[in-house]
Amino acid sequence: MKPRDDAPRANLFLDEMEVGDRFESKGMTLGEADIVGFAREWDPQPFHVDAEAARRSHFGGLIASGFQTMVVAFRLLYQTGFLVDANLGGPGIDELRWIKPVRPGDTLRASAVVTEIVPSRSKPDRGTLRLAVEARNQAGEVVMTATLVVVALRSRGAQPAY
Amino acid sequence: MKPRDDAPRANLFLDEMEVGDRFESKGMTLGEADIVGFAREWDPQPFHVDAEAARRSHFGGLIASGFQTMVVAFRLLYQTGFLVDANLGGPGIDELRWIKPVRPGDTLRASAVVTEIVPSRSKPDRGTLRLAVEARNQAGEVVMTATLVVVALRSRGAQPAY
Repeated sequence: MKPRDDAPRANLFLDEMEVGDRFESKGMTLGEADIVGFAREWDPQPFHVDAEAARRSHFGGLIASGFQTMVVAFRLLYQTGFLVDANLGGPGIDELRWIKPVRPGDTLRASAVVTEIVPSRSKPDRGTLRLAVEARNQAGEVVMTATLVVVALRSRGAQPAY
Repeated sequence: MKPRDDAPRANLFLDEMEVGDRFESKGMTLGEADIVGFAREWDPQPFHVDAEAARRSHFGGLIASGFQTMVVAFRLLYQTGFLVDANLGGPGIDELRWIKPVRPGDTLRASAVVTEIVPSRSKPDRGTLRLAVEARNQAGEVVMTATLVVVALRSRGAQPAY
């Protein structure tokens, strides 16, 4: 059932995944305008929106909002297409940690490794997936880690029992 | 040192806070355009961006991206002004859970309760604050919970030892 070749594995269902499966995103570069634009709207702390205040801060210069790092990482993973039709949404995120600052010009990539697959006891068509997510910069340094919890359909033929 | 009147407590430092202190934000209403606009850019899952697909989904209609609920809640808290000059940024978030869908027209409010204050052993001018965050809708229903971890200066006179 499970293709084990080198082709990108897309639009998977829970029964097609195994613990240890790994998904890698493309890269995305965050310019200063991207960082300041996001932060002005969503996280207007001085070290995210004001280059001069950021220089005087302990960060020594502008850094991206951690929320931006987070949404960029999860969007990059979503755009790999590994979970599309099976995806029923996520109950939450555990242990999100911002490890290193993300600065203007940094290119982020995200990876996700399946750490747990738990079939639902009450709804046999679905289960819960835990993914260890990492975002890295262009130097390969980990800038963020998190565990994403997702509910997904087990197989392509499943009719969600809403 | 600690004002215990009914005035809003603003721009606090760690030594002015106690476990149990509670901060409440104002409200913010999310219209359909806000929900679809955020999701198109940051979380383009069908049930966030496509009203027709959302109607057919198990959510029965458009719901806000959980990431939007999260950034709105934290921005509302930031805008209360309870932590400004003391704020050194946050290492992370624990146990973020999306409890109920947020739908077009919902008005969100956020609260934060101090659950832990831990002075740093290596840097005596600062410490770590843990905040139990809740976002509620206009019916008072909790839509999101999370624990936010923040590093903050202990007192107003502290010169951060960068």
